[in-house]
Amino acid sequence: MRAPLHRRRHNLTADFRNAKIDALLITSPANWYYLTGFTGESGTLIVTGKGATFITDGRFMEQGRAEMSGVRVIQQKGSVFESVGQFLRDSRSRRVGFDASQITVGQLQSLRKAAGARVRWISAPGRVESLRMRKDATELAQMRRAAILAGEVVQSTIGLLKPGIREFEVGAEIEYQMRKRGASGPAFETIVAFGERAALPHARPTAKRLGKNELVVLDLGAILGHYCSDITRTVYMGRAPKRIRIWYGAVLEAQAAAIAAAKSGAACGDVDAAARQVLAGYRLDHLFVHSTGHGLGLEVHEDPRVARGQKKRLEPGNVITIEPGVYSAGIGGIRIEDDVAVHAGRTEVLTRAPRNLIEI
Amino acid sequence: MRAPLHRRRHNLTADFRNAKIDALLITSPANWYYLTGFTGESGTLIVTGKGATFITDGRFMEQGRAEMSGVRVIQQKGSVFESVGQFLRDSRSRRVGFDASQITVGQLQSLRKAAGARVRWISAPGRVESLRMRKDATELAQMRRAAILAGEVVQSTIGLLKPGIREFEVGAEIEYQMRKRGASGPAFETIVAFGERAALPHARPTAKRLGKNELVVLDLGAILGHYCSDITRTVYMGRAPKRIRIWYGAVLEAQAAAIAAAKSGAACGDVDAAARQVLAGYRLDHLFVHSTGHGLGLEVHEDPRVARGQKKRLEPGNVITIEPGVYSAGIGGIRIEDDVAVHAGRTEVLTRAPRNLIEI
Repeated sequence: MRAPLHRRRHNLTADFRNAKIDALLITSPANWYYLTGFTGESGTLIVTGKGATFITDGRFMEQGRAEMSGVRVIQQKGSVFESVGQFLRDSRSRRVGFDASQITVGQLQSLRKAAGARVRWISAPGRVESLRMRKDATELAQMRRAAILAGEVVQSTIGLLKPGIREFEVGAEIEYQMRKRGASGPAFETIVAFGERAALPHARPTAKRLGKNELVVLDLGAILGHYCSDITRTVYMGRAPKRIRIWYGAVLEAQAAAIAAAKSGAACGDVDAAARQVLAGYRLDHLFVHSTGHGLGLEVHEDPRVARGQKKRLEPGNVITIEPGVYSAGIGGIRIEDDVAVHAGRTEVLTRAPRNLIEI
Repeated sequence: MRAPLHRRRHNLTADFRNAKIDALLITSPANWYYLTGFTGESGTLIVTGKGATFITDGRFMEQGRAEMSGVRVIQQKGSVFESVGQFLRDSRSRRVGFDASQITVGQLQSLRKAAGARVRWISAPGRVESLRMRKDATELAQMRRAAILAGEVVQSTIGLLKPGIREFEVGAEIEYQMRKRGASGPAFETIVAFGERAALPHARPTAKRLGKNELVVLDLGAILGHYCSDITRTVYMGRAPKRIRIWYGAVLEAQAAAIAAAKSGAACGDVDAAARQVLAGYRLDHLFVHSTGHGLGLEVHEDPRVARGQKKRLEPGNVITIEPGVYSAGIGGIRIEDDVAVHAGRTEVLTRAPRNLIEI
């Protein structure tokens, strides 16, 4: 793992001159893991052309030294941002880049105060995130494993559905199955929604029991070797009425259209539009209340966004979800979601569970 | 649940005149749940003396209307902060409070731009958090249940420990047990650390197998009815050597001293010092690399902080953890943690698992 991490830090700093910065603050755990391998939860990484320094508190000194190679580890005095500011004040860095979406107003105040007037603060957003969008072969292999694991869990969970089971019991089984298969945990709070509750795209499991003739939405993801997966399947408890069959078919067709559109070079907004157009053909587009998908990797939501009007073009190495859905209060919801890797000449669906309507 | 939420919003706005604000932005899920009962993950709550408005995206409109009473729910156009800014521009609010520790530099830029020059942005930190520190009887009852659940899980998990079991298997069992007992999930990433890995205060479960003559640190918490618990127990696989017994006894004595010091009116820094002084008597204070505890409630880390030099005085209704520990690379670590509620005339330990050294 060591050499690729050096290379990632090198790729990051190679562009510092264009960005007119000589140091960059990295405050998000996913970003510092990507650049250093550190798995702890607290600290700040400072990357300069000369090297990398991690400032953290006493809880993480031992772990920081054990996990990072070629990174200086320093224990903070006072708050981490005071210590980072003081470190920069005493360093040669004069133009320090930061991401305005990842630093609070209060943190920037602390940094400015501690660093003093000689340090200038330069907005340098999304620099690590844009490297992270293009997954390398090792990352793709890991994401494939995480996706396959999620597909196995969703299939084994569907086998457990029976009238009377509670949403939270199904949620517990899902996360237990993930961990038994080696996942470090769920990538997000597992969604289990029965019946009318399926109309809430982000329903958390409750004590509701599964009734006959109800929709079931299962949306789950696993973290395996630090990489996330994300899959949704919708099943029907009983024989689905005609309207549900039509809606399910429309969502499935919308998903297939978006997957087909997700080619290297395609604009993300066009992938979103591909799903939306199919649903419009069924006059269901007004029930599709969220975007078609999102990037996936060390975090469950990352760049690129697959949403209306997004001009960003897909590149080889991008991994995105494709997850159209329709939702109607009083009826429920239907969503089908898979994870897709974009390659130079082809698109690879990483998740492998069947997508046809399952009636139990 | 409705009336207490109205009262909480009233308590919040009652102080707006002193704070010289006529509206307050609430951007943290725990804060908006506390004030409105909304359990969704995205949006912004705006509270004024005249009422409350929640601005969110399409995914949460249905849920927002179902869960909140007396709160206007508006769907955002563009980003939520653009919509909030536009809403404020068109409102009568001219002095809008925000928490600099909860708003990013980028979000404040969006807000300022959309709200225009007539809206002034006033730093108003921690206003909901300071209400949340004083738990009412209903909250305390819920926290008692969450704490008892965590104690049951830690005890049943200790019963499963045997040589050869992997850290992540124990982690999976812990979270499964939580959910089976009704928890909505873990309050934080469960810590399971065997042997030398116990020297890392925040070790995540790995594939490491439990060996004979190793320490085991289990640190877990459950979310039950939205409230968090947090407990740590350290056990020894085998007959503990003399040094481990002495260290364990020192940590237990430090914890007892801090619990005894955690009385209404005591400064949090003095509670921390009580633990530290006991460890200093054993010449172990240099191995105690974190603070003694933290507030607990809707979030697993909230005010007050029980750390060196903290002047904040404990009040009835505060719930804090007391969790001294010692850590040494190559040997391992020992931590004992319980949750404590402060009342007017007494201190209540909410977690109920035995604290003596267990040798398996």
